[in-house]
Amino acid sequence: MIRVVLVEPEGEYNVGFIARLCKNFLVDELYIVNPKVNISEAIKFSAGGKEFLENAKIVNNFNDAIADVDIKIATSSIADNKGDILRKSIKPWELFPLIQGKRVALIFGRESVGLTREEIFKSDFLLHIPANPSYPVLNLSHAVGIILYEIWKNRGILNNPQTSTISE
Amino acid sequence: MIRVVLVEPEGEYNVGFIARLCKNFLVDELYIVNPKVNISEAIKFSAGGKEFLENAKIVNNFNDAIADVDIKIATSSIADNKGDILRKSIKPWELFPLIQGKRVALIFGRESVGLTREEIFKSDFLLHIPANPSYPVLNLSHAVGIILYEIWKNRGILNNPQTSTISE
Ligand SMILES: Nc1ncnc2c1ncn2[C@@H]1O[C@H](CSCC[C@H](N)C(=O)O)[C@@H](O)[C@H]1O
Ligand SMILES: Nc1ncnc2c1ncn2[C@@H]1O[C@H](CSCC[C@H](N)C(=O)O)[C@@H](O)[C@H]1O
Ligand SMILES: Nc1ncnc2c1ncn2[C@@H]1O[C@H](CSCC[C@H](N)C(=O)O)[C@@H](O)[C@H]1O
Repeated sequence: MIRVVLVEPEGEYNVGFIARLCKNFLVDELYIVNPKVNISEAIKFSAGGKEFLENAKIVNNFNDAIADVDIKIATSSIADNKGDILRKSIKPWELFPLIQGKRVALIFGRESVGLTREEIFKSDFLLHIPANPSYPVLNLSHAVGIILYEIWKNRGILNNPQTSTISE
Repeated sequence: MIRVVLVEPEGEYNVGFIARLCKNFLVDELYIVNPKVNISEAIKFSAGGKEFLENAKIVNNFNDAIADVDIKIATSSIADNKGDILRKSIKPWELFPLIQGKRVALIFGRESVGLTREEIFKSDFLLHIPANPSYPVLNLSHAVGIILYEIWKNRGILNNPQTSTISE
């Protein structure tokens, strides 16, 4: 079970695009913590993923969004700062073996300031998408897309190692 | 050398986000064929990738955008239709060995109708990102992000198989 959790997202287009990505990569649940956007505006960007916004679970605080999962994956553009244990990170392609068969929450931060240290501390792993060291900060919905793609790919290869097609 | 080619893009946010992705994943060149958007509007969405829009090469036709590369990769949400040879596709993770050390154009279609069959015919390969068979159509800039990420990842693993960090 894959749940995408957006913490206080600020951009309508991002929230809409993420709903579309949830449909593209067959996510199970979309949770939004205290959205800073108008959901009906966001729907304009959701295309075939509209249903994910209509059914999104809106909660008031972070804990409610992660209460009932087995494993919590925080994400950040900042990773592996020297001496900062909290920031020791995993890569997208290392994620699948950790989450297979589990109820997982993939947690994404605010466009402006990301996730708080407290939110990261409540998670089990910190996932970082490697990118240009001088500019590794992806736009929120593009970070979501890359991680969902990587999980989808690994599910497909698992189910059908020869052709790498999803068969579920 | 990696060139991203956008063919008649229609959404300001997509063009802006793609410029940002070009910076995140260190693309060499951005070409735009006959843009249907206002570039100064698009810049609002480009964040740290603004320079890619300021330096984007705007051309009037498809041929000018692909004239001087070694290998042309068209992309499509539709792939492997039975009996349609034009549509035999490769997957993102099969791309790297084909393009390594070459001048490559990654070609992306219009939000509304994708690439024409003629444009695909002029390319060497058709690349398809596998996704939900009942809704495989990604938003344009999210398709760009996933492909650039996959190339970046493979460059990193090549340069440093142990840690998977980019070292160029
Ligand atoms: N390279 C990367 N790896 C993993 N997640 C990333 C990422 N780039 C952006 N994100 C995701 O996108 C969200 C918004 S980007 C947040 C940027 C903010 N200036 C900061 O200091 O954190 C992040 O919270 C994270 O969820
Ligand atoms: N699953 C996928 N694989 C590869 N490229 C994709 C993709 N989904 C979208 N794209 C890219 O995003 C562009 C816009 S999507 C085009 C959708 C259009 N309705 C159509 O029928 O084609 C495509 O031309 C392609 O470049
Ligand atoms: N399922 C399909 N298989 C093969 N060709 C298709 C097709 N659907 C549309 N076409 C052809 O594609 C041409 C332009 S449609 C746009 C191309 C496609 N949507 C893409 O993403 O690249 C039309 O001439 C039509 O004949």
